[in-house]
Amino acid sequence: MILNDAARTALNSSRLAHLVTLNPDGSPQVSVVWVKAVGDELQMGHLGDGQKIRNLRRDPRCAVSIETGVRNDIGLDEYLIVHGRGEITPGGAPELLQELAHGYLGPDVTFPPMPDPPPGNIVRVHAERVGGVGPWTD
Amino acid sequence: MILNDAARTALNSSRLAHLVTLNPDGSPQVSVVWVKAVGDELQMGHLGDGQKIRNLRRDPRCAVSIETGVRNDIGLDEYLIVHGRGEITPGGAPELLQELAHGYLGPDVTFPPMPDPPPGNIVRVHAERVGGVGPWTD
Repeated sequence: MILNDAARTALNSSRLAHLVTLNPDGSPQVSVVWVKAVGDELQMGHLGDGQKIRNLRRDPRCAVSIETGVRNDIGLDEYLIVHGRGEITPGGAPELLQELAHGYLGPDVTFPPMPDPPPGNIVRVHAERVGGVGPWTD
Repeated sequence: MILNDAARTALNSSRLAHLVTLNPDGSPQVSVVWVKAVGDELQMGHLGDGQKIRNLRRDPRCAVSIETGVRNDIGLDEYLIVHGRGEITPGGAPELLQELAHGYLGPDVTFPPMPDPPPGNIVRVHAERVGGVGPWTD
């Protein structure tokens, strides 16, 4: 496994994740997203077909960073960086967003806030290496 | 100006910033850093000569993202993305880090925690465009 239990816990704590993809000219593009982790896979839901989806279809290399909100014993703020490759699978975005909304917005929230949301896409980031400040390697 | 007052305030609030640079193979590299903003320039101090410094010397294209901790009127968490170009100027890192440490660690903290820190480098990111969720355009 690339992600240990501490890393998976950080990624499943309903904190915002910063997803970096690569634009056609190679420059970096950042989106702030909701995330969950299952095994070594990070999952994110997107209703649309925006720049980050188009970027990952063209070049799967990406990175995800997340703050844990924990300050370690020597006074530094913990954060996790996951480098990996993104895969796009069509559909399923409303269901994943609804599941994540319970943690990110509130237990009773209905999300997306529309009657017939588009199926969208799920981004799956296959973790390849981790970095940052925290107990991310056993 | 690219950065309006709200964006500059967000960048000067002692919240962690996610700095994205480009590795030699074009893949994204993320570091979580302390930041301040002066005009349209973001400033970060680095004691060493690490990957992000080498990356910016080779390819100045970069991005910085930061969460504000504010939830907007429709329930979404605000965040700011700054895309720009990085410039490295040698020296001055201990002084900038000490200034930032008062906000990031505590008003009485001495940082770097060593008697004779190396002069390091200052990264200056010249903002070119902003994005995200928040009042970043007037």
